[in-house]
Amino acid sequence: TQNYRITLLPGDGIGPEIMNVAVDVLKVVGKQFDLQFEFQQALMGGAAIDATGEPLPADTLEMCRNSDAVLLAAVGGYKWDSLPSHLRPEAGLLGLRAGLGLFANLRPAKIIPQLIDASTLKKEVVEGVDIMVVRELTGGIYFGKPKGIFETETGEKRGVNTMVYSESEIERIGRVAFEAARKRGGKLCSVDKSNVLEVSQLWRDRITSLSQEYPDIELSHMYVDAAAMQLVRAPKQFDTIVTGNLFGDILSDAAAMLTGSIGMLPSASLGASGPGVFEPVHGSAPDIAGQDKANPLAQVLSAAMMLRYGLNQSAAADKIEKAVSQVLEKGDRTGDIMSPGMNLLGCRSMGETLIQAL
Amino acid sequence: TQNYRITLLPGDGIGPEIMNVAVDVLKVVGKQFDLQFEFQQALMGGAAIDATGEPLPADTLEMCRNSDAVLLAAVGGYKWDSLPSHLRPEAGLLGLRAGLGLFANLRPAKIIPQLIDASTLKKEVVEGVDIMVVRELTGGIYFGKPKGIFETETGEKRGVNTMVYSESEIERIGRVAFEAARKRGGKLCSVDKSNVLEVSQLWRDRITSLSQEYPDIELSHMYVDAAAMQLVRAPKQFDTIVTGNLFGDILSDAAAMLTGSIGMLPSASLGASGPGVFEPVHGSAPDIAGQDKANPLAQVLSAAMMLRYGLNQSAAADKIEKAVSQVLEKGDRTGDIMSPGMNLLGCRSMGETLIQAL
Ligand SMILES: CC(C)[C@H](C(=O)O)[C@@H](O)C(=O)O
Ligand SMILES: CC(C)[C@H](C(=O)O)[C@@H](O)C(=O)O
Repeated sequence: TQNYRITLLPGDGIGPEIMNVAVDVLKVVGKQFDLQFEFQQALMGGAAIDATGEPLPADTLEMCRNSDAVLLAAVGGYKWDSLPSHLRPEAGLLGLRAGLGLFANLRPAKIIPQLIDASTLKKEVVEGVDIMVVRELTGGIYFGKPKGIFETETGEKRGVNTMVYSESEIERIGRVAFEAARKRGGKLCSVDKSNVLEVSQLWRDRITSLSQEYPDIELSHMYVDAAAMQLVRAPKQFDTIVTGNLFGDILSDAAAMLTGSIGMLPSASLGASGPGVFEPVHGSAPDIAGQDKANPLAQVLSAAMMLRYGLNQSAAADKIEKAVSQVLEKGDRTGDIMSPGMNLLGCRSMGETLIQAL
Repeated sequence: TQNYRITLLPGDGIGPEIMNVAVDVLKVVGKQFDLQFEFQQALMGGAAIDATGEPLPADTLEMCRNSDAVLLAAVGGYKWDSLPSHLRPEAGLLGLRAGLGLFANLRPAKIIPQLIDASTLKKEVVEGVDIMVVRELTGGIYFGKPKGIFETETGEKRGVNTMVYSESEIERIGRVAFEAARKRGGKLCSVDKSNVLEVSQLWRDRITSLSQEYPDIELSHMYVDAAAMQLVRAPKQFDTIVTGNLFGDILSDAAAMLTGSIGMLPSASLGASGPGVFEPVHGSAPDIAGQDKANPLAQVLSAAMMLRYGLNQSAAADKIEKAVSQVLEKGDRTGDIMSPGMNLLGCRSMGETLIQAL
């Protein structure tokens, strides 16, 4: 038996409901694959702000550090939107990334055949789209200094942030991306703005040098504006994309939306060692929280990513992913992915039908 | 008779061919509306590099300064891609923007009904899309300092760029955007990343304050990642968008691609006073240069934008835009927008059919 200590961060809004389903699913596959999960739960986001005044209490970070993987649901909501920014749920997220050194964010955007009609793009354009965005997550303009709002001599305010990457930061995310491309279609597109930004020139140089160690990977480069266009024009041209924190934030969301079913997409954030954090791409949906209407599938698929990338248990991950496909094939749908002729289920019933499929 | 001195910058690739068509069109509407154009031509981009070693010779900038408006075609091409960045055609473009103080870039993304099938998005999603992106063009991370590649004590290189906006920079682009929204649907969406960046917090604050002077405009705010998503999910929700230089670069290209006919889109870059620069969104297409295959319509529509925004001659602008519609309605097409059953024309013939329509 393999033992794993998993920290659960249900967070806000629909977080607790969808987390329950994911935990039930993990328990079932755990039995099937002889994996023993020890779940421990901690506060994060708005829930933590309400209880402790801080979005990421020190206890929570400590508990995450002492675990094999962290499963996060969703944080944030209107309720906390007017707090000063260092006390908002988002600050907790940034603190968790920095605190655990999660420099690599893996954001798959894969068309789910059963849900292809939900895409706003034409079927022939998105059929078979399977993109992995590898986003740098602890550097760039998100953390660069100087940053802040400063007064000039004339009394005018200036807002300042700094986009900065060092060679070693570029190399380590580059390696993750080349490795990811190797396990996928063997193509890597590095996205930058090197026709304008020096930080991107260094980025392009280092990625190009690194490619000599990965002769089997076909490397290309694209400017971020062109990449935003090409994602809309011909998304099938992309296999794996690697880019910085800010560009990755924008492009991974655009890529996700191509699929039309953002309620289905998981993500993984990984460090050099230590636990990774696995979470759905969607938000906390406060408007439907507590009504048993949420779609738990992205949370369940995040648990699968946790098994695959965090715990190296691909067989168990495959099993979960297959169960999700089966359930969709059967026609089971939550409200967000409902279409005529399908069976409308609540969050809990979707969990039950998944367990049956397992 | 009104007299206007117009500087023409045909640039590279298909630039000269499409410029010829635009000039012919301007001459015809000039006669019709009693406008006298004095055209003067200068070198820019690769053409200037080949002749003088610099992408924007001082003479060219001077000639632009001494004119009422600048009509630019396209710059760049493979040939100059390996030059050091300050000698590349793009550097000429940035120099022109800075040199003429062109802080406001207007980028319309409007579906052309006759070409709606060219969009990769479903008809019902893009039908009627009419977005104006107002992009700040002389500030932000494009020009902020410090910038460069520096060595740390350990000998490691760091690439650095600085995203900076002052209150006055934000206000002046904000005013352009509120005014633009007033002439359009009365809705303005300001895009930033204020949940992470201080420069965006100042941006959001100033835009919000400014909105008190425009009580008739409905202002909303959106994070840049959400905006990239929403452009794909439901582009009709947008009327006018205002954002910084980098976000505007990315979002205006994404918005342009929604229309599916980027070969049709013009743009305007305006300063506080002095001449504006008007140019198509598409590039110099070196692969088809000199073959009479290029689509001159974006260049012609850029001339129309010049009349409307640069010379305050809306009636003449309307006339050109109507002629373009008529020609499309008749079924005339260049190769890039060709579809079965339509008449395939070259660049020159497209110009002739336009002149007839006028
Ligand atoms: C909430 C926000 C700070 C965060 C980010 O920008 O990284 C989010 O957009 C994401 O992509 O995870
Ligand atoms: C060529 C490049 C410098 C330029 C920019 O980034 O502004 C282009 O992408 C544009 O949008 O006009």
